[in-house]
Amino acid sequence: MQLFEALKIDEALKVLKENLINVRARSEEVELLDALNRVLAEDVYSPEDIPPFNRSTVDGYAVIASDTFGASESLPAILKVAGEIKMGEKPAFSLKAGEAARISTGGMLPEGSDAVVMLEYTQPLEDGTLLVERPVAPGENVILKGEDVKKGDLVLKKGHTLRPQDLAVLAGMGFQKVRVAVSPKVSVISTGDEIKPPGVEIREGEIRDMNSFSVAGLVLKWGGIPEVFGVVRDDFDEIKKAVSEALKISDLVVISGGSSVGTRDLTVKVLESLGKPGVIAHGLAVKPGKPTIIAVVEEKPVVGLPGHPVSAMVIFEQVVRPIISWFLGRPEDYGGLKVKAKIARNISSAAGREDFIRVRLEQKEGELWAVPVLGKSGLISTMVESHGLARIAPEKLGVKEGEYVDVELY
Amino acid sequence: MQLFEALKIDEALKVLKENLINVRARSEEVELLDALNRVLAEDVYSPEDIPPFNRSTVDGYAVIASDTFGASESLPAILKVAGEIKMGEKPAFSLKAGEAARISTGGMLPEGSDAVVMLEYTQPLEDGTLLVERPVAPGENVILKGEDVKKGDLVLKKGHTLRPQDLAVLAGMGFQKVRVAVSPKVSVISTGDEIKPPGVEIREGEIRDMNSFSVAGLVLKWGGIPEVFGVVRDDFDEIKKAVSEALKISDLVVISGGSSVGTRDLTVKVLESLGKPGVIAHGLAVKPGKPTIIAVVEEKPVVGLPGHPVSAMVIFEQVVRPIISWFLGRPEDYGGLKVKAKIARNISSAAGREDFIRVRLEQKEGELWAVPVLGKSGLISTMVESHGLARIAPEKLGVKEGEYVDVELY
Repeated sequence: MQLFEALKIDEALKVLKENLINVRARSEEVELLDALNRVLAEDVYSPEDIPPFNRSTVDGYAVIASDTFGASESLPAILKVAGEIKMGEKPAFSLKAGEAARISTGGMLPEGSDAVVMLEYTQPLEDGTLLVERPVAPGENVILKGEDVKKGDLVLKKGHTLRPQDLAVLAGMGFQKVRVAVSPKVSVISTGDEIKPPGVEIREGEIRDMNSFSVAGLVLKWGGIPEVFGVVRDDFDEIKKAVSEALKISDLVVISGGSSVGTRDLTVKVLESLGKPGVIAHGLAVKPGKPTIIAVVEEKPVVGLPGHPVSAMVIFEQVVRPIISWFLGRPEDYGGLKVKAKIARNISSAAGREDFIRVRLEQKEGELWAVPVLGKSGLISTMVESHGLARIAPEKLGVKEGEYVDVELY
Repeated sequence: MQLFEALKIDEALKVLKENLINVRARSEEVELLDALNRVLAEDVYSPEDIPPFNRSTVDGYAVIASDTFGASESLPAILKVAGEIKMGEKPAFSLKAGEAARISTGGMLPEGSDAVVMLEYTQPLEDGTLLVERPVAPGENVILKGEDVKKGDLVLKKGHTLRPQDLAVLAGMGFQKVRVAVSPKVSVISTGDEIKPPGVEIREGEIRDMNSFSVAGLVLKWGGIPEVFGVVRDDFDEIKKAVSEALKISDLVVISGGSSVGTRDLTVKVLESLGKPGVIAHGLAVKPGKPTIIAVVEEKPVVGLPGHPVSAMVIFEQVVRPIISWFLGRPEDYGGLKVKAKIARNISSAAGREDFIRVRLEQKEGELWAVPVLGKSGLISTMVESHGLARIAPEKLGVKEGEYVDVELY
């Protein structure tokens, strides 16, 4: 058995990255409607102008703006109606000085015109002339060709997670498909002789598997595909068999469960037996979550989460989520929304240790407060009742009531 | 044609609700791993205690706390080791005064014991006695039976959207399945002679369909199932045919596209022709998004979104999302995270009108600022570049630079 000093999370991730040669985002093309929440695998430049022509944003008359300068109700500009513009068609005529053309919202401005007067400020007369009762500036009530997106513009960057508006702009640029990162497969293994899968009656001394579900849920939430193995007994051969199988079918293996020293040692032994470099971090300078194991086996990352359900979720967010982000080519710090809030009571922390405090957010007199939800890291209910995690940086010895902390929301 | 006064959004939703008899959340049972982001259809009470027994949170010795009172390194308490507790099993013995039992993290405390001393503060001797060098309080290093969740506790409420930790607590309570709201089917129809579906070459005067994609994306994001009809021409019979078909297969119909008066009038005529009550709101006191149509046809809600892509998304969030929430039995105001931020410039608004301003959030000197992203509501790029919508309430005439506004994040 090697001895490991407890690394800080960022140090552990750095060592892990150095030991991984093969983590690169693979990509695939998907239909736009299947691309929501997927991560762009390449920069997207616009192949065309949006809109592709000068487009009216109102119902009214296309004009030459300078023809309307000085127009008022008492002294309207008098223009000649040159025609009507049909939707979806290029006007067959161009506008000359003193002319106007009826146009609807979304219509294409005829050549020569540079603005649109809203219908309510015009009066068409029977003889084909039009009274314009207000002046318009050049460009008024018009979206100019390329004003939304210019041909050649970098519109969306590689690593960006696609939202509904992003799908719309991709459609607007004419894309039917988009190249996104392949979602990594993440095997989820629970261990522990006292842990029973759902559906099995439990006897005294046994408890139900919770971590498989929080971990699989987090995998889904952050863009991976969970492969749930269920519960494996605390037995060297059984754990080894499960991990070997998991390494075959997935990009990343997450083992959760056993919090006792015996179980952890067993997991370490299994990971060491599967090849080099094996375990690269055993124990992290973080609370909760100290008994974390990080390994590289067959060039794939393996993370042994602590067994306590809160610790398992905290370490997932801090260690496993960044690894999923590597596979997706997404920024490593991608996660929940971070807000600043005042901590509602003193919290002490050890130097050199990063602390994550479950908090509820409360708004008091216009200020955001983070109220610690206290309770042992074995209590999943504290995760259900809280809104996010407040972080106390390793260099701090704690935070005082009223001090600002960074809170990442679930 | 009826004339409608422009209702405020909440008024329009109220009228809509009064005209809908059949919106109730239907429910179905799903496996836990399929339940992420689904909405609970019933209150969940715990059928059992979690944990179901007094459980050690450390590796050490189960003791009777009072036996350790006053113990120190120089004057350790001397106990007799009564046995070892196996993981996942009920101890076969109970603890009497002066006794201790070896226990691992997660193990079940024997009857009689009420605390656990951590391994590092003990010294087992060869003769079966144990030196305890620190006192423990009753309950120390133990999660008591029911401390996480008590049998009969209301753990999760109807209408709650399930997160990873909620799946874990459901598993912990022994549930394999959970009853959730059936996701409503939402038909998405685009109209407009100038709008072309992706994959079709566009001619001058035509633009590509963007709203089908933002709307379908929003439907997915907020828990509905989109049925995308694509683009329908501005023709009474064609729109009527599409809407009739949509009413057959979905719970809610969203028509987007045509911003011109002609197109809007056509949509209104179609909706009026399909039966009573037909259109119940035409025009909302909101910017952007005034030309919104709300109707009830065949007891189902139909929303006509404005054609401008920003307006369509704003009205989706303010009108369609609450309707989806009705179907899901979720709080009507469910949505993105709301934060307070200082607006970075003066914005004027008309009295009686609700305004939604696209903003970027920026943190300056510890304060959150909402920087308006200006631009016409026809520019989808302003949605891509912004982080959320700041709301100016109907009773306000605007906001002054530095004033707090509510921002809902995308």
